[in-house]
Amino acid sequence: MKLETTYKSNNYPIIIEHHALDQLRDYIKNYKDIVLVIDQKVENEWSHITNFIATEYEAHKLIIPSGETTKTLAFYEETIESLLSKQLTRNTCLIAIGGGATGDFTGFLAATLLRGVDFIQVPTTILAHDSSVGGKVGINSKYGKNLIGAFYRPKAVIYDLNFLNTLPYSEILSGYAEVYKHALLNDIESVNHIESQYPDEQALKSLNEIEYYLYKGVQTKLNIIVADEKESNVRKFLNLGHTFGHAVEYKLKIPHGHAVMIGIVFQFIVANITLNKSFDVAHYVNYLSDLDYPLDVINALDFEPLYQLMLNDKKNDEQGVQMVLLNDIGNPVVKHIDYTTLSQAFETFKTYFNK
Amino acid sequence: MKLETTYKSNNYPIIIEHHALDQLRDYIKNYKDIVLVIDQKVENEWSHITNFIATEYEAHKLIIPSGETTKTLAFYEETIESLLSKQLTRNTCLIAIGGGATGDFTGFLAATLLRGVDFIQVPTTILAHDSSVGGKVGINSKYGKNLIGAFYRPKAVIYDLNFLNTLPYSEILSGYAEVYKHALLNDIESVNHIESQYPDEQALKSLNEIEYYLYKGVQTKLNIIVADEKESNVRKFLNLGHTFGHAVEYKLKIPHGHAVMIGIVFQFIVANITLNKSFDVAHYVNYLSDLDYPLDVINALDFEPLYQLMLNDKKNDEQGVQMVLLNDIGNPVVKHIDYTTLSQAFETFKTYFNK
Repeated sequence: MKLETTYKSNNYPIIIEHHALDQLRDYIKNYKDIVLVIDQKVENEWSHITNFIATEYEAHKLIIPSGETTKTLAFYEETIESLLSKQLTRNTCLIAIGGGATGDFTGFLAATLLRGVDFIQVPTTILAHDSSVGGKVGINSKYGKNLIGAFYRPKAVIYDLNFLNTLPYSEILSGYAEVYKHALLNDIESVNHIESQYPDEQALKSLNEIEYYLYKGVQTKLNIIVADEKESNVRKFLNLGHTFGHAVEYKLKIPHGHAVMIGIVFQFIVANITLNKSFDVAHYVNYLSDLDYPLDVINALDFEPLYQLMLNDKKNDEQGVQMVLLNDIGNPVVKHIDYTTLSQAFETFKTYFNK
Repeated sequence: MKLETTYKSNNYPIIIEHHALDQLRDYIKNYKDIVLVIDQKVENEWSHITNFIATEYEAHKLIIPSGETTKTLAFYEETIESLLSKQLTRNTCLIAIGGGATGDFTGFLAATLLRGVDFIQVPTTILAHDSSVGGKVGINSKYGKNLIGAFYRPKAVIYDLNFLNTLPYSEILSGYAEVYKHALLNDIESVNHIESQYPDEQALKSLNEIEYYLYKGVQTKLNIIVADEKESNVRKFLNLGHTFGHAVEYKLKIPHGHAVMIGIVFQFIVANITLNKSFDVAHYVNYLSDLDYPLDVINALDFEPLYQLMLNDKKNDEQGVQMVLLNDIGNPVVKHIDYTTLSQAFETFKTYFNK
């Protein structure tokens, strides 16, 4: 499957297929220099592939620490100086092979090397489908994630699904949270469809048809981002589950997607209280627990520190905590939620695990 | 005087006037946070002004090392972390008060802080008129100048000519080289006009009417850059005098503009040889010597090391040294020049100082 972004300019293709890497040649044949920037964990599993590409295209190979640990200013400095020592010209393409963090880091390198060179993303995780649109690249500051960065689009995203075969289940769960979130932002049919495709852990592990859901996820995110260019604030919808999720993630240091799923359930509870909705929270708790999301970790948490973390969220304004809530499936709104409501929702959430 | 850039989008005003700073308010009234990034030397002379602005707009003040010494990765890291510690939002404007280096550094901070915040340039040197168009921002690598950076435009350039009153003459000379270069790229009338305005050191020191020539210089550069968006390579014309000039600058560590003027004279000699022109080289040697440019430093140089430096220039390709030559005043061309011609021109250049 292939789709093309629909920005006003600087569009790029996103190819989502098994063996998509076979098409890499079409996108890199005209560059003088190619640099593969590869996550260490991916290199451990797939060096036969990365070596093949390096030989085939006479590319430099640069192995970087796995995940977020690579996104420091110190490592950025070391890496960009090392790239510059190779006397690269602006006719260079960096190819990020790894998850979201590898893409963020490589994209920021590309954005700032010689005032900007091209880059291509080769995502190797499910979660990375989320960062394959949006053009956000960057590294972390000691004051927070992604605070140093740019908006800089890749020339292509080449999503070779073969890489997903070696993903641990925990990584699958983390990525599935954003896929599921995109279904919730889309419509009720999308949600029913994905839940019936992946009713339990065994089904999700198989990753059958995942290409369809990645495609839909990318498309949903793209539609929102392009709409945001005209109507500001729509982009905030993508934070569904993230306000509470980020607080839990920060507190418990659990994978991003696990925390986002907890945030998504929390959001249903808040919507029931504050928007007078009657979402079937038990359904979501049961479904996600069947998939093995550790929702019950919230039993070990206190509200007060989470509230303080929610207040620090950079999407807030002077009026306090802002959340994305579903008015209905596929129909998100952004609302300020007061302390009492948040606290009440938190206690309600805990009751699902105290039976 | 005021002009507006003529890019396809993201245009900005360039105001060139005495007391232009009085108009700063119009451009910064809507920001939540303002940060003044000030060159140490400027702060030494003009702290009464910068303090006034800081108080008036409740701005943070950040004093940075003077000139190119500020443009290191280490200092970038220190500065961006310090800015992030202030919990700035994206509704922040950085104001660069200083010369070209201050603008380059501040622009790169702005380009990468929180994925991009606005910035305004307040140039305090003549040379900085050159970097007020073109959108180039960046810092230096240990492998060369400006190798880490981005294309990122300011929201406004506010050129308050009062700052020029305290410029040392050496700085005036360095800036005048680019002003004069822009006249050479423009037409013969511009050159005659500027030479009669500034026939000698005393006249140039007065900086009478400099606002007109800065305006013309900015306009010439802008025209070339905008033309380059359609017809690639026109931008190279701006390197007039820079191929040989950069080599001399690197070798002797003299100010940029002094070296560029030497490069401009060299270029006339090469044009006479290779394009069969009859530029009056003695006229340029005499005029620029009267202004006190140290043209005779080339007497102390050998050709071979300069040639090696010219070969390293990043504008070259496989065919060797590329130079911008004037076919006529106002009519530049880009040509590959061979070793023999360059060497011959170099020896000819020396004869002007061996009489």
